Amino acid sequence: MNVFIIHAHPEPHSFCTAMKDLAVTTFEAAGHTVQVSDLYAMNWNPVASAADFGARSNPDYLVYALEQRHAHGQGALAADISAELEKLLAADLVIFNFPIFWCSVPAILKGWIDRVLVSGVCYGGLRFYDKGGLAGKKAMLSFTLGAQPHMFADEAAIHGELNLMLRHLQRGTLAYAGLRVLPPFAAYHVPYIDHDARTAMLADYREHLVNIENVQPLRFPKMAEFDRQLNPLGQPDKAGGQISV
Amino acid sequence: MNVFIIHAHPEPHSFCTAMKDLAVTTFEAAGHTVQVSDLYAMNWNPVASAADFGARSNPDYLVYALEQRHAHGQGALAADISAELEKLLAADLVIFNFPIFWCSVPAILKGWIDRVLVSGVCYGGLRFYDKGGLAGKKAMLSFTLGAQPHMFADEAAIHGELNLMLRHLQRGTLAYAGLRVLPPFAAYHVPYIDHDARTAMLADYREHLVNIENVQPLRFPKMAEFDRQLNPLGQPDKAGGQISV
Repeated sequence: MNVFIIHAHPEPHSFCTAMKDLAVTTFEAAGHTVQVSDLYAMNWNPVASAADFGARSNPDYLVYALEQRHAHGQGALAADISAELEKLLAADLVIFNFPIFWCSVPAILKGWIDRVLVSGVCYGGLRFYDKGGLAGKKAMLSFTLGAQPHMFADEAAIHGELNLMLRHLQRGTLAYAGLRVLPPFAAYHVPYIDHDARTAMLADYREHLVNIENVQPLRFPKMAEFDRQLNPLGQPDKAGGQISV
Repeated sequence: MNVFIIHAHPEPHSFCTAMKDLAVTTFEAAGHTVQVSDLYAMNWNPVASAADFGARSNPDYLVYALEQRHAHGQGALAADISAELEKLLAADLVIFNFPIFWCSVPAILKGWIDRVLVSGVCYGGLRFYDKGGLAGKKAMLSFTLGAQPHMFADEAAIHGELNLMLRHLQRGTLAYAGLRVLPPFAAYHVPYIDHDARTAMLADYREHLVNIENVQPLRFPKMAEFDRQLNPLGQPDKAGGQISV
């Protein structure tokens, strides 16, 4: 496999960074190829703007997604975006490795999503979910957080079910663009646990990565379950795996 | 009321910008005070980093939330953060006005959340949800998107229920910090509708804003429903309003 890890943590010695480093060595030891984009180290620009396009279809009024499509066709996307898109398109497995900030990704990583998941390439028209532009690839969220597992255990938990809190990422972003989304690896309570607990957590993560090719993806909508106006055709096919999250 | 609008759109002539402008004039006409932070116009820095702190509790290892708390106590937060925090603390109603990018806020606005919702001020310890640091204030998401209403109508819809897609923002961010969250104003299908439809949508938005003091907030967890370890004490109190989203 070609593995592409997009890593975003402001502290180079963080546990989150150790997870990224462990993933690199684990995948390489198994004979896979690994690419890493360390967004803080790259000083990644997260702000989607007119400056992302060397040529414009409409120079007077910016519709970002339309200009993405146009600029990609003209080879006029900003160089930093093109470089990331190339890594993404070469990948079989994409791992987003980050600390949870406000139940989502840090802004620097949100800006990677905003700028690199280019309209017309990663999605567009009726090309989304299982028909999305990145179909055939897998993705996984891998993150650290302060909370404990019982706080995200189910809908009675204080923050509700983890996968629903992550819906905007797992369903609204990754699955939408065609990626098969593997269950997330959540490193809970990291700021509060001791060295031994952290070591055990890294061992768990290593185990998770070693077995990753056997992990069943989460279940998301399939285009065949909807008509061309995207109204549901009937009951979704629950046999396809877990229910949609 | 003191109204604080955080606006984030890369196109100054966008419909989304017209919504922001309409909110300003509507609230001012009703005698309210309005503050606007136009993040693109301000060239807002969205990247949470060590540079945000003029003094550090631990200069060798960055735990962002701990340094927020420390720097706030020392008056050593970056000037751009302090200025936004002051506007936030003065507000009775906070409106986030933005185009949906990947089922969430644009990165520039995510970075406002990451940097301005300062630990120790907006939340901390067991001060969250109804005990959060911003308790007593209200907030609302106001956004444009390409999708149509039936695509977010309920859990059978292709993208599931809108409020679940927005859970990370409405529950995991705004409600978590103590804000009472009003139902969102969603301007659907904006890139595809004509001038008359847009004009009608602005009229709807104006109506929504004029009546906003009578709108019932969404229902989120209350700390009294959980023990000190944040395990649920029993069935949540459904009488408090709508069920949690």
